[in-house]
Amino acid sequence: MHTTPRPLTAAPVAATAFGVVAPLNQGTALGDGVLGRWQLRNKERTIPHGIDRLEAVGNLDNLRRAAGQSDAPFRGLVFADSDVYKTLEAIAWELGHGGDDALHLFYDDTVTLLQEAQEESGYLNSAYQTADADRTPRRDHATVRERWTDFAFGHELYCAGHLIQAAVASARSLGDDRLLQVATRFADLIVREFGGPESPVYPGHPEIEYALVELYRLTEKKEYLNTAVAFIDRRGRGWLGDGVFGKVYYQDDTPVRDTEVMRGHAVRAIYLNSGAADVYLETGDATLLAALETQWDDMVSRRSYVTGGSGSRHRDEAFGDAYELPSDRAYAETCAGIAAMHWAWRMYLATGGAKYADFFETALYNVVADGLAESGDAFFYSNPLQLRADHLSVQEEAAATRLGWYYCACCPPNLMRTFASLEGYLAGVRGDELQLVQYTRSRIEAEMEGMRCVVDVDTEYPVDGRVRITVIEATRGSYPVGAPVGALALRVPGWCSGVNTLVNGSAVDVEPTDGWLRLEGALAAGTVVVLDFDLTPQVLVPDERIDAIRGCVAARRGPVVYCLEQRDNTADVDRATLDLEEPLAETETTTELGPVLAAAGAVREGGTGALYAPRGGTRPPAERTMLRLRPYATWGNGDPGAMRVWIPVTR
Amino acid sequence: MHTTPRPLTAAPVAATAFGVVAPLNQGTALGDGVLGRWQLRNKERTIPHGIDRLEAVGNLDNLRRAAGQSDAPFRGLVFADSDVYKTLEAIAWELGHGGDDALHLFYDDTVTLLQEAQEESGYLNSAYQTADADRTPRRDHATVRERWTDFAFGHELYCAGHLIQAAVASARSLGDDRLLQVATRFADLIVREFGGPESPVYPGHPEIEYALVELYRLTEKKEYLNTAVAFIDRRGRGWLGDGVFGKVYYQDDTPVRDTEVMRGHAVRAIYLNSGAADVYLETGDATLLAALETQWDDMVSRRSYVTGGSGSRHRDEAFGDAYELPSDRAYAETCAGIAAMHWAWRMYLATGGAKYADFFETALYNVVADGLAESGDAFFYSNPLQLRADHLSVQEEAAATRLGWYYCACCPPNLMRTFASLEGYLAGVRGDELQLVQYTRSRIEAEMEGMRCVVDVDTEYPVDGRVRITVIEATRGSYPVGAPVGALALRVPGWCSGVNTLVNGSAVDVEPTDGWLRLEGALAAGTVVVLDFDLTPQVLVPDERIDAIRGCVAARRGPVVYCLEQRDNTADVDRATLDLEEPLAETETTTELGPVLAAAGAVREGGTGALYAPRGGTRPPAERTMLRLRPYATWGNGDPGAMRVWIPVTR
Repeated sequence: MHTTPRPLTAAPVAATAFGVVAPLNQGTALGDGVLGRWQLRNKERTIPHGIDRLEAVGNLDNLRRAAGQSDAPFRGLVFADSDVYKTLEAIAWELGHGGDDALHLFYDDTVTLLQEAQEESGYLNSAYQTADADRTPRRDHATVRERWTDFAFGHELYCAGHLIQAAVASARSLGDDRLLQVATRFADLIVREFGGPESPVYPGHPEIEYALVELYRLTEKKEYLNTAVAFIDRRGRGWLGDGVFGKVYYQDDTPVRDTEVMRGHAVRAIYLNSGAADVYLETGDATLLAALETQWDDMVSRRSYVTGGSGSRHRDEAFGDAYELPSDRAYAETCAGIAAMHWAWRMYLATGGAKYADFFETALYNVVADGLAESGDAFFYSNPLQLRADHLSVQEEAAATRLGWYYCACCPPNLMRTFASLEGYLAGVRGDELQLVQYTRSRIEAEMEGMRCVVDVDTEYPVDGRVRITVIEATRGSYPVGAPVGALALRVPGWCSGVNTLVNGSAVDVEPTDGWLRLEGALAAGTVVVLDFDLTPQVLVPDERIDAIRGCVAARRGPVVYCLEQRDNTADVDRATLDLEEPLAETETTTELGPVLAAAGAVREGGTGALYAPRGGTRPPAERTMLRLRPYATWGNGDPGAMRVWIPVTR
Repeated sequence: MHTTPRPLTAAPVAATAFGVVAPLNQGTALGDGVLGRWQLRNKERTIPHGIDRLEAVGNLDNLRRAAGQSDAPFRGLVFADSDVYKTLEAIAWELGHGGDDALHLFYDDTVTLLQEAQEESGYLNSAYQTADADRTPRRDHATVRERWTDFAFGHELYCAGHLIQAAVASARSLGDDRLLQVATRFADLIVREFGGPESPVYPGHPEIEYALVELYRLTEKKEYLNTAVAFIDRRGRGWLGDGVFGKVYYQDDTPVRDTEVMRGHAVRAIYLNSGAADVYLETGDATLLAALETQWDDMVSRRSYVTGGSGSRHRDEAFGDAYELPSDRAYAETCAGIAAMHWAWRMYLATGGAKYADFFETALYNVVADGLAESGDAFFYSNPLQLRADHLSVQEEAAATRLGWYYCACCPPNLMRTFASLEGYLAGVRGDELQLVQYTRSRIEAEMEGMRCVVDVDTEYPVDGRVRITVIEATRGSYPVGAPVGALALRVPGWCSGVNTLVNGSAVDVEPTDGWLRLEGALAAGTVVVLDFDLTPQVLVPDERIDAIRGCVAARRGPVVYCLEQRDNTADVDRATLDLEEPLAETETTTELGPVLAAAGAVREGGTGALYAPRGGTRPPAERTMLRLRPYATWGNGDPGAMRVWIPVTR
């Protein structure tokens, strides 16, 4: 590695009972690669900015009021506490990397505040604890009612889930159990209230399910798992009522096991399936895994954006019909992209399928990375694939530029906790294989069947296609003498049309199987593997059934999807078309995700004058032009202007 | 005429001060043509069904409770009373045609109920009068607060507007002033409260503006006009606050005169402009007309569907950015289509422009007609231009079939009052010209510059292109002897590529000017004009900037837009493409709006397997097939299935 990796930290998902792949716990660290730099920016810019915002917009005052330390009226949405918890989770992971004094101070103060705000019963939710004095309706339909009376929109269990996840992170990463005590007191209350077989309760917004499973993994207390199982098993009976958007909105139209399509609110749907996957990983319930595989295939083959985004509708932040994938009104919420990473990781652990890691990668480098500005302190909530020059940017979920914070601020701290824990998703162990899943400059330590190994990964992937993997250490421990050494399994991404492989300087000719390049016996100290992925830019065509982008193509280089942005182009992006005769070319201009690409194109000015006209009218001639494309996730960091991922083909 | 026309009735818009065209009051009647049959179905099926629903879902009980005759809790949305008023308006127009006993009875009972529900002060709104006992939030964000405190979402002025329109209809059509007394007492209260120069009030949902202007036309009381002027002039200062969707939602971002684009909630935007047009018609304020013309051009050239629908977004029922016109998620609310007819009519009266009548015609035969089932008792709220076979029909604004009623039931009674008053929009008088605007079997009486004429129009338009116009009577009255007789001006629709004209059996060769064919001296008794419009089906192409329908074409015959519906086709409508080599052909199968069309097409089954794939993969061969298209407004009257207006071109 060029630079010392950041200190090792813990993984978001611990060892599971039924996963065929074991995650690495306290075994990976990011170096100075693309993901490592993102993690550092997150620590230095994004988290401090978030702390500042939580103070400014009232989240902390809400908790102070619940703790009897403030008279300020409750501010924000009914789930305001969850913004604090997600930020705390991010800080907990960062403190595992070492953190700094400011983060330590905020962490300590906030844990103390939560201890003081928590009621004797274990209950903790500032919106409800302060609601006696302020019961006005919130902007998102959720009115603060009596506690434990509005499971559809009340978000109490949702907030508890985020508290638990923050607590698990701090316990794993810091060995600090103060937050864990707060979380388990609340979790114990939830188990008492809703864990019993007669309880008709499940949350309108899933999230607590996988938090409880992780709390079970940490504490080994079975009642947490059982309550998560109950929330999954009960769901789909319609007990949440119709609400504003119908039962489908919160996946309450059909039980999880009977569901074949992704539908309703995208973040809810994917958090639910992440929780169901975690339940499978601890129960081995094959009916659950089968339903999840069916739903996964539905999502990826019919309802996902090329950026890994989910959610086609603004009205209810929901999945659309199959192939309903508009670019301009793509909702593709940042949180849904993060949720898909969570679900993908758990499906990978459950099955070992490389396709899940492929989708994780697509989401990470495109829809999720797009959520954050280069500066680290501004955010997209929705991530459309097209913005027109005249876009009326008056609604925060359809902003033309990233905003510093949101009234509904779920996405910013979700990005924080994601970037702070990225090293948890780089590799896994399956039998005697160390599987490298995401390539970035990093150090990976793993234990497998009695063997211990340390692997160094050196790469500027996905900017560069070369990945150099060095086995630093491979000690056999209790491994029987004479047994074969372990294998290295390297994911060959689904986008990849070609990869050259050198092992200790010699070319090897191994075909990947199901997305994995398995190198037998490679886990021996001193082994050096060099992968060269072909990053020649590709022109993508959509399935013909996606009406919204018919006649268009997109550019992709490795896992990175490109877009046309006005600031790079003199041609009118709203009217530009791409010529397929000439290949895409890399230019000298670089971005953090790869070079700017050049393409031959055309622009036709003027028009028929009528929006709809009989066929046969004359069109003004098209003028040839050069188009410049940049990685999608890097758009919107200059002056606002038109942008599009899918570019019409010149005809 | 083949049959006796229905009795003459009054016009929705009376003579104006500044319009260049005078509407005909009590001068037109529909015969047994397309519009006459629709009006009859409305009387016989739709209005009785609506009366039944108003009783069943609580609208009438709400008023009974306000009148102290019921203890039933308030049901429905905060603007529930407006459903009653729109139904009453429809009944008032129908009673002008003669009506029947059931309609008379309902009219009398309901007027009495309103008299009893109205407070001494003139205030009348059952949601607020019953709110003491029921202040729970409504499903559409609107909470019932204290009266006159929530102008943004409270809908009190909106409901008052509909009450006034019903009252004007009953006064004009029946000569009955009981409802007018109720309405003027309420209007007087509104004038006292909000008519003064210091009042900072205007309604979140425009509607009362044009109601007040019409009330002024009826009563000649200037304070009604002045209050309407004030509501128009004040708007755009942001006094309504941001609400859920921002100021733009209710056109409160910019003053009407400074606005260049259509934006925000489509029905609000178009009702507002109808009101502003009515203010222009009585004040002659040129700055207002100029702003309206600019906004009209923006709507028609950048933000309208080919069906005349408005509103591209479900989230806030709003106009989208320019060229943001998705077929599948077209909102195109029925009410917005009706609103556009209102605005178009007033712009025609103001300017004489045939283009406004063109748009009126497009909306009427497509988006508005689509709102009602053939059976007359089921309704579309939104009118998308595409429905996929797998459409998840769980939300009432995105239903796969027409529904019998709606929780938000604004559209059904809006259709009722529209069909009941259609004859008011057939013709106008400009100077010595009688202008025939919409062609349907009808009788038209007009007075113009002292002259009186009766014209008979015989046609099955738009099913048939032949229109036979006979001047039955033309008496010169006080017209000076020797002066030229009047002219007949016949609108040549914008879609029309050719028209043959015979006057008294002889071909005439007159070119239309600005959409009008002016026949000098034709207004003499006995003149027979025969128009033959060329209804050869046309293939339409969209402006290249409409991303959602790139590479697609649509079929139109006369003003009637066609669609591909699954019930007429064996080919999979979701995958069908159209061959441009062969012309569209008329088949023997007919519908109420014209023949089913046949087209050559193709279907490509299977696919690449991946939603997005590198260019160059092989595609399965396309199989040729015959496609059958039907008038858009007639779809959805059989088994539910896929539908699309814009059909991809075979490539």
